[in-house]
Amino acid sequence: MADIAKRSVDYNRWYQDVIQAAELADNSPVRGCMVIRPNGYAIWENIQRILDAKFKELGHVNAYFPLLIPKSFLAREAQHVEGFAKECAIVTHHRLKQVTENGKTTVIPDPESKLEEEYVIRPTSETVIWDMYRKWIQSYRDLPILINQWANVMRWEMRTRMFLRTTEFLWQEGHTAHATAAEARAETLQMLEVYRWFAEEILAMPVITGVKTANERFAGAVETFSIEAMMQDGKALQAGTSHDLGQNFAKAFDVKFQDAAGKVEHVWATSWGMSTRIIGALIMTHSDDEGLVLPPRIAATKAVIVPIWKNEEEMAQVCAAADGLAAQLRVAVGPVHVDRRDNMRPGWKYAEWERKGVPLRIELGPRDLAGQQVMMVARHDRKKEAVGFQQLAEAVTSELARIQQDLFDRAVTRRRENTHVIDSWEAFTGLFDGPGGFAECHWCGDGDCEKAVQEKTKVTIRNLPLVRDETPGACVHCGKPSIGRVVFAQSY
Amino acid sequence: MADIAKRSVDYNRWYQDVIQAAELADNSPVRGCMVIRPNGYAIWENIQRILDAKFKELGHVNAYFPLLIPKSFLAREAQHVEGFAKECAIVTHHRLKQVTENGKTTVIPDPESKLEEEYVIRPTSETVIWDMYRKWIQSYRDLPILINQWANVMRWEMRTRMFLRTTEFLWQEGHTAHATAAEARAETLQMLEVYRWFAEEILAMPVITGVKTANERFAGAVETFSIEAMMQDGKALQAGTSHDLGQNFAKAFDVKFQDAAGKVEHVWATSWGMSTRIIGALIMTHSDDEGLVLPPRIAATKAVIVPIWKNEEEMAQVCAAADGLAAQLRVAVGPVHVDRRDNMRPGWKYAEWERKGVPLRIELGPRDLAGQQVMMVARHDRKKEAVGFQQLAEAVTSELARIQQDLFDRAVTRRRENTHVIDSWEAFTGLFDGPGGFAECHWCGDGDCEKAVQEKTKVTIRNLPLVRDETPGACVHCGKPSIGRVVFAQSY
Repeated sequence: MADIAKRSVDYNRWYQDVIQAAELADNSPVRGCMVIRPNGYAIWENIQRILDAKFKELGHVNAYFPLLIPKSFLAREAQHVEGFAKECAIVTHHRLKQVTENGKTTVIPDPESKLEEEYVIRPTSETVIWDMYRKWIQSYRDLPILINQWANVMRWEMRTRMFLRTTEFLWQEGHTAHATAAEARAETLQMLEVYRWFAEEILAMPVITGVKTANERFAGAVETFSIEAMMQDGKALQAGTSHDLGQNFAKAFDVKFQDAAGKVEHVWATSWGMSTRIIGALIMTHSDDEGLVLPPRIAATKAVIVPIWKNEEEMAQVCAAADGLAAQLRVAVGPVHVDRRDNMRPGWKYAEWERKGVPLRIELGPRDLAGQQVMMVARHDRKKEAVGFQQLAEAVTSELARIQQDLFDRAVTRRRENTHVIDSWEAFTGLFDGPGGFAECHWCGDGDCEKAVQEKTKVTIRNLPLVRDETPGACVHCGKPSIGRVVFAQSY
Repeated sequence: MADIAKRSVDYNRWYQDVIQAAELADNSPVRGCMVIRPNGYAIWENIQRILDAKFKELGHVNAYFPLLIPKSFLAREAQHVEGFAKECAIVTHHRLKQVTENGKTTVIPDPESKLEEEYVIRPTSETVIWDMYRKWIQSYRDLPILINQWANVMRWEMRTRMFLRTTEFLWQEGHTAHATAAEARAETLQMLEVYRWFAEEILAMPVITGVKTANERFAGAVETFSIEAMMQDGKALQAGTSHDLGQNFAKAFDVKFQDAAGKVEHVWATSWGMSTRIIGALIMTHSDDEGLVLPPRIAATKAVIVPIWKNEEEMAQVCAAADGLAAQLRVAVGPVHVDRRDNMRPGWKYAEWERKGVPLRIELGPRDLAGQQVMMVARHDRKKEAVGFQQLAEAVTSELARIQQDLFDRAVTRRRENTHVIDSWEAFTGLFDGPGGFAECHWCGDGDCEKAVQEKTKVTIRNLPLVRDETPGACVHCGKPSIGRVVFAQSY
């Protein structure tokens, strides 16, 4: 088993090591793409299950649109093509041909199969979806349309990193159509709030909800909102976005509706997405030098029971007891695993389940069995407690709740300790040359000033928090009057 | 609302009309691809949910592998490249470039972004998965690997048809690795049985399980098994396949393991898949000239309550009662919809829900309310029954069970009536020039003879049933000694 680098020594290697040690993902033979292994995919399945139920509770339904987008579609919305043309996979042929050269047979794209119009693998689906909405929307009675899609998308990234930035990634993309601007804005904010709820309540990851600057807006949006989380190295990670698209896509794809009074208007739109990137954020928010740490609500396995024995007779007894306890616990808290492998010592098993981030370990040896109790050990703080069989279901339930809350509190504390109110350029550069973190600074609202800060320091405005200090002040960079305090940080 | 063609007049148009009328799918701007609309996708979600639970019950886990496959991978397995090279989408560039010609701006693949090695959009994932298995498998302790993937795949079809044959489709593909040939064969047959169970018990679609002929084997398989269903026009539809891949892919990708005795061997493999094609089979098995008919176990909405009123006071009363009944029914049978639209007469609503295939309609007017009863109407046979509020949950539960069984029985009867034991070439051509159906015929086992039959009549061997008549006989085409009776049919 490979060592895990220490965070304090090599944060980036630590991140890769945790992913390998927990068998979450692996590099693939396809440039910039990863393989999501069963342990990683189980987290994604929980994310899907919980988000999907919430979307449906709010009236959304799922559908599926084509992977390929005619290249001309991208060009219909001027900003959209600017944003996405530079990093897309292009399909140009539809057949391979075997050729033999110097006695060696290879395959090449068959020139005779060249497509009349090339396709782009969707980097996002606004264009192909709004082309369909034109067919489906005539009257206000057809609105709202509240559709979500679970899909793979592709953006040809030059520098990739597992989960955080990969050429192909999995996500959900919501695409809604509304009869009024106000309704579209309300939907945009509602879904932002869903993402905040999901990050904080399920992933135990505190986030700042806010509006992106014009420079950082989604290509084609009127306004982009985001949730921003702080990683353990003080950098920010954008963990979900919700866009008010105004009438931009409706105009580009000529989608109009007749309102109750008979007036014909363009439709208002939103889109919103969360991707497998969130798993990278999850890893970096809670894990430690021993491996993955997962909040119980998102962990695929809530607890692992490790039976301990010295001979076959003991093995039969503790395993039978472990199976009985596991059955009880599954009813109370969900998936519980019994590790009955016979080719590994308990200490090795403990270390393995710690690397894999199972929130709670339950040890059960012959002496425990005689005393009708187990030893319960929390993954994140190693808190140990002896618990009687009769009390186990209740104890595990409340211990998992404690772990969930503790992980959130720890992340909130870390964010508070690494967030600074900064009012001078000297303090600003001092912070980001040094420890980093979040800086709450006055900003003039000028995009050129924002870009100048980025060029000098690589620091960007993460967002303008929905709840922010709006007392007057001077821009931390240019000194001009401020529009309020915003959050600056280095980011993933 | 568009008319639905009659099956007896234009079967193919009827099929398209049912899909449009039930809003299951729509044509897309991408050649050969469809959009799966929310009503169609809800069926797919139920398919996913039920199959996924069964796969997991049998020890499988989900993972995700890249969409793109290096073209050289396809060529590693000789039969595989023969099978898939002719119909694949090829990615050759990774950037679009805006160009202005004659004052018009368009986008073209940027020549500078040409890839060194082209990628193919996966037509199936054996190659990229076995390339990863080489990294993951060293010892017998790493086996078996029981991985499934839910994904989109692409095969560049020239003649497409919604659900049945589309360039892009959704599916699950299981890929397992085993230490022995016997274990791989057992897995192959186990998954075939899962597909049979799913088709018959959930979709109410009787199928014949059997082995495909060598000509019809999956490209790279040692043996391919299938389930074959009969559609209402007498044609066969292959609704799921399970492949014993032997050591072919392990050899092509050099995947070996050390067994308990220390001996190094190539790994044995299986793969098995079911796709959105099954929705086409579902539509064609049960639907009628009024629209979609769905078996209750796969229907997203089990029942629809249509409240009836003449004035606002009545509306408030019947809608309140409908909501109360719906809440009770949801506990008993799952999703139930209350149709309270105020711009449509009840008769229109009835016709709409019939088109959409909701298995059970519940009518509730002021007079019903006074008598504390409803009128319950089955979609597939229009059986009407008055049921008291107190008995409703029980009556709906048993009526849905009756519908499920009745649809299966109807399909079994239809198959029996259209299956013929045929022992002469004259009777064979007479059947397929005429009404069609399934022909149980002796066959010599020779692939050339099989191809000759296909060239003359377009009829193919669907499979060699697992349970089949093996008494001696003479091949229906060439007269040579038979290997037993097999199933001949025209097919989708």
